[in-house]
Amino acid sequence: MPLDQSSSRRRFLGILGLAGLVTAWRTPRARLAAQAPAAAPTPTAQWWPSRWGAGDQAGASNWITPEKVLDSAKLIRDGKVYRLGRVYEAGMPLFGTRSFSLTIPGGPTGGPFGANKLVYHDEFVVSEIGQIGTQFDGLGHIGCVVGKDGDKTEMRYYNGFTEAEIGDANGLVKLGVEKIKPIFTRGILVDVAGVKGRMMNMGEEISVADVQAALQRQGIAESSIQPGDGVFFNTGWGSLWMKDNAKFNEGAPGVGLAVARWCVAKQLALIGTDHWATDVVPNPDPDLAFIAHHELITKNGILNHENLDFTALINDRVSEFVYVFAPLRFKGATGSPGRPIAIV
Amino acid sequence: MPLDQSSSRRRFLGILGLAGLVTAWRTPRARLAAQAPAAAPTPTAQWWPSRWGAGDQAGASNWITPEKVLDSAKLIRDGKVYRLGRVYEAGMPLFGTRSFSLTIPGGPTGGPFGANKLVYHDEFVVSEIGQIGTQFDGLGHIGCVVGKDGDKTEMRYYNGFTEAEIGDANGLVKLGVEKIKPIFTRGILVDVAGVKGRMMNMGEEISVADVQAALQRQGIAESSIQPGDGVFFNTGWGSLWMKDNAKFNEGAPGVGLAVARWCVAKQLALIGTDHWATDVVPNPDPDLAFIAHHELITKNGILNHENLDFTALINDRVSEFVYVFAPLRFKGATGSPGRPIAIV
Amino acid sequence: MPLDQSSSRRRFLGILGLAGLVTAWRTPRARLAAQAPAAAPTPTAQWWPSRWGAGDQAGASNWITPEKVLDSAKLIRDGKVYRLGRVYEAGMPLFGTRSFSLTIPGGPTGGPFGANKLVYHDEFVVSEIGQIGTQFDGLGHIGCVVGKDGDKTEMRYYNGFTEAEIGDANGLVKLGVEKIKPIFTRGILVDVAGVKGRMMNMGEEISVADVQAALQRQGIAESSIQPGDGVFFNTGWGSLWMKDNAKFNEGAPGVGLAVARWCVAKQLALIGTDHWATDVVPNPDPDLAFIAHHELITKNGILNHENLDFTALINDRVSEFVYVFAPLRFKGATGSPGRPIAIV
Amino acid sequence: MPLDQSSSRRRFLGILGLAGLVTAWRTPRARLAAQAPAAAPTPTAQWWPSRWGAGDQAGASNWITPEKVLDSAKLIRDGKVYRLGRVYEAGMPLFGTRSFSLTIPGGPTGGPFGANKLVYHDEFVVSEIGQIGTQFDGLGHIGCVVGKDGDKTEMRYYNGFTEAEIGDANGLVKLGVEKIKPIFTRGILVDVAGVKGRMMNMGEEISVADVQAALQRQGIAESSIQPGDGVFFNTGWGSLWMKDNAKFNEGAPGVGLAVARWCVAKQLALIGTDHWATDVVPNPDPDLAFIAHHELITKNGILNHENLDFTALINDRVSEFVYVFAPLRFKGATGSPGRPIAIV
Repeated sequence: MPLDQSSSRRRFLGILGLAGLVTAWRTPRARLAAQAPAAAPTPTAQWWPSRWGAGDQAGASNWITPEKVLDSAKLIRDGKVYRLGRVYEAGMPLFGTRSFSLTIPGGPTGGPFGANKLVYHDEFVVSEIGQIGTQFDGLGHIGCVVGKDGDKTEMRYYNGFTEAEIGDANGLVKLGVEKIKPIFTRGILVDVAGVKGRMMNMGEEISVADVQAALQRQGIAESSIQPGDGVFFNTGWGSLWMKDNAKFNEGAPGVGLAVARWCVAKQLALIGTDHWATDVVPNPDPDLAFIAHHELITKNGILNHENLDFTALINDRVSEFVYVFAPLRFKGATGSPGRPIAIV
Repeated sequence: MPLDQSSSRRRFLGILGLAGLVTAWRTPRARLAAQAPAAAPTPTAQWWPSRWGAGDQAGASNWITPEKVLDSAKLIRDGKVYRLGRVYEAGMPLFGTRSFSLTIPGGPTGGPFGANKLVYHDEFVVSEIGQIGTQFDGLGHIGCVVGKDGDKTEMRYYNGFTEAEIGDANGLVKLGVEKIKPIFTRGILVDVAGVKGRMMNMGEEISVADVQAALQRQGIAESSIQPGDGVFFNTGWGSLWMKDNAKFNEGAPGVGLAVARWCVAKQLALIGTDHWATDVVPNPDPDLAFIAHHELITKNGILNHENLDFTALINDRVSEFVYVFAPLRFKGATGSPGRPIAIV
Repeated sequence: MPLDQSSSRRRFLGILGLAGLVTAWRTPRARLAAQAPAAAPTPTAQWWPSRWGAGDQAGASNWITPEKVLDSAKLIRDGKVYRLGRVYEAGMPLFGTRSFSLTIPGGPTGGPFGANKLVYHDEFVVSEIGQIGTQFDGLGHIGCVVGKDGDKTEMRYYNGFTEAEIGDANGLVKLGVEKIKPIFTRGILVDVAGVKGRMMNMGEEISVADVQAALQRQGIAESSIQPGDGVFFNTGWGSLWMKDNAKFNEGAPGVGLAVARWCVAKQLALIGTDHWATDVVPNPDPDLAFIAHHELITKNGILNHENLDFTALINDRVSEFVYVFAPLRFKGATGSPGRPIAIV
Repeated sequence: MPLDQSSSRRRFLGILGLAGLVTAWRTPRARLAAQAPAAAPTPTAQWWPSRWGAGDQAGASNWITPEKVLDSAKLIRDGKVYRLGRVYEAGMPLFGTRSFSLTIPGGPTGGPFGANKLVYHDEFVVSEIGQIGTQFDGLGHIGCVVGKDGDKTEMRYYNGFTEAEIGDANGLVKLGVEKIKPIFTRGILVDVAGVKGRMMNMGEEISVADVQAALQRQGIAESSIQPGDGVFFNTGWGSLWMKDNAKFNEGAPGVGLAVARWCVAKQLALIGTDHWATDVVPNPDPDLAFIAHHELITKNGILNHENLDFTALINDRVSEFVYVFAPLRFKGATGSPGRPIAIV
């Protein structure tokens, strides 16, 4: 097939694919059969065993050694703590069919007990707990099909684990988020919206040059980035949070394959962004679906924190900090909610 | 009424009350009407406004100032991180009718998407999320009836807020755990089981002398305890976790009124224990139900972290550390799950 | 205070009240304190004990005696079964903060087992199960405050039960829907939209004359209505279901105090409508909130089935049928989902 | 391989398989990889297309025609209604990791509204709603692997639908229980425990002779059984419900391949039993796992109602009745809760 035909066909399929992608995540959960485009999968070298050995389930959180913690702690000079996470609440933007419900059983839940007449409240939460709001992606969240569609022995995850090995109705058997080590590391904010002077647009991919320009503007030497650091990209898209949820969910500016590979080359522990996708959605290359997730999580075990809020850091012109986040150890979960903080 | 009669009646009622208490928490959620003992409530002085002013909702997390953070950070000398929390999993001990369910919708949940054939998993969690496993009590968790039973305007919480003011089917309107500041403070382990050379018994109350003996054995001067510190009591009861859940849930050794008042006098930010109750259950004084919760949370806004695991700290003879915990900001929640860490 | 002033003030408050009402049901669950208008409660005579005796919890389902069943069964002449209920599905209109989630854990959920390699699916449902979609109101669903706001001993339900007596975090202790008897009775459709030749409007109240005109048009003698019958009102509003959910939820035409009293006088077992409210919303009298619910359920124990679909009955010009519905016996539930049928 | 070796190996594997089966259903949901016995699947002829045509999703509920309804209605002679279902409540026996939670958000949930000061309760239910308590199995509940383990295109269900075709994280795409027609048919009770004079034992299979003896004792001619009838087997095991849940869940007497085939030959619409399994568990043939489910549901589209309670029917010596059950139309659900009734 001549290249142009192939390219045109791939573009056509890609557009369909991306349209289907956003639709699928927003309405009923995506089904196996229908969404797969006919195009052959991007040829990829086998990505396992991982840098940390066959069987490793902690991925890039392995970078967080005592030396790294000690080194990072030196960044605490003011004692000021910044909240990087959003409040989890009814009405926050949720993707696809994900839901969030918090109720208080009873009013109060129980009591009075004792002569002191104690009463108490519980809360009851129902949600895709690791994949809502400020969400931290574990290593079992993202994989890809490397062979026949529908065959669980040919769906692969980080370190080569297959769906047949990790999947279970009651929680992932391998690669659960409880395997991730607590993260206390140097964080670097890359304010791409700042260097551009505007909120980035839906579908606008951050380039490596953008990253470098932002670092330069903020006075951070690219060469100072060390293995195990966390890099956080501000696109401005997060300003839509609870302001225009429909637009917020429709797509996003973000990381594509080039910046993902830059992150891999830097040997980061994790990255983060100010929106739900981290990836640019839709990707300018219509064949690619959430390719940054794919490159970072599946192939390299690099973690990903979404829906962060960098406003206070930016207001205080803070570009370097200790990032602290210890993912909840929900056994077999794909991700974690939580309240990441930055300390300077 | 002669004192002895009154005392005997109170004791009798108290025993009933406590039996009812444990039963109530283990079977259907406690109802308002039935469990209230006939005894008058312990007379208590009005405890509001709080030390941090009328309307304050952050309680003792207000101690965590930049100065406190800076001071605590000096304890980071080795870069070693200890996990103080339990894994959240099916089969863990749960109190009363609380439940925990984690499922993975689909297998995988969605995909494949794109030519890269990305697939993904979500998890779906249903639980009294802030009151299961390693659980951090927020300020809306515990209150008491100060007037007529059943009247929401006479149930009072921290800083004097009433049930009528804070209660709501969709999350507490005031005193939600999202109001608590991230905690990064000096932590001190008080290994009561260590000084006694044994696991404490159900219903055995920690005395102030026990605390002092443990501190002395561990080489910590009581006078070194500062406002805003966290003190963590090891009773040994946590060794029953996932080993003998039935016994674990039946009661606990723990903190009573005397040690609670000692904590208040020390102006702590929080306390923690190795089991579900923090309080001694049943309290040796049968009139008192969860009186440490009452004294610490309701009256003084001091926070409480339950089901911690101090094993690694004890093995390494670590008694002083930075305790790091940023409660999840679930709007209107009564508590928070999470993964507290200790750093030295 | 002169009458006109009072009236004007009441009207003003009522409008606020109704605006607040719809808002409250659509956003966070309504709180106790804020929504109560300042107006005094409508004076009402004590409505208990009920016709069926003090302590009765079955209400008007008591009309369904063997004689009533035998008599109704005579209406089965063709063996044709009509489905009166809606499909429960993602995307259906839900009121207020109510939610509906159905997931399939795993894919499949379990197996293979045995040499026959059996596999299986479960579904996992999370919802206000008795108050979504085609919903049948039990007797614990609706009550009213008869004294001081916030006092559970002064909130009254069917047969005079108080909130203090029936409320519990784990299900109603009294008046749970499991107490309702299976219903197999004569059903009569009153096609108000049919007689008007149009869908009724939001806030348009069905008058007794409307009911009589519809009955006459359909050839049903009003005098033929017997105690224990069910009467079902078609307003046309149900045609918006899954077509225009926003409009559907915004309000409804429906039953007000006059038709509710007509139903009481007829000693019906239940009524039903083609939308979520049964009541006219907003009520033309701005002081009245869900007054048909109040009159029928709370005061008279008459049951209420919402979100029914009469299309097939109307297409076949069926006005009289056996209505069959056996509410699920979820202990302590306020209502029931289900699949009511009509048989002719 | 000589027959005896093969037979012995199959028996050995079968025993392992069955042990694993009960364990798997009682602890974490069964995983794909581990439980599969090495034995080849029982060779089975292709069972599709179904009697009702390729693509049919209603199975044996298709027997319920107007003629069948009219014919069945003749059995209503006394107007007496029997409740065949259990109450759904905390503490009821649940299989495997299935759960049931019912809470009441708030106390009450909302209000007061209007000058009439209306208040209301909702309930919030979380459960494998179609597979708990009195549970009706839909056609998507049970399938089997016909080819390679883990391949969704080789897992087959009723009418030959594959996992790839029906599976979805948000509800089955085909064979959801909403496709089943309301059932109003002749029911026949077969009181096997009655004819044996005792509760049957765990693992005791009902024989065809047992069925015939029971019918004879009850005065029902076997030849009177017609296509579309429902046959209900009383084993006595249901008497353990809420009395000895542990024993109840451990296994059951019940239907094996012989009686399942008898039911197929009779062209029944459905069967039912007084316990959770319908099948005999463990099956005396250790190779067979839930083979009655397999034979009835997967191959023949015959429906199955579990955890019925025949006590009142037996007390009144009622063997023949109208069985009425309209499964809830939860889109994509695998089964349905509900309140089946018998009318005579």
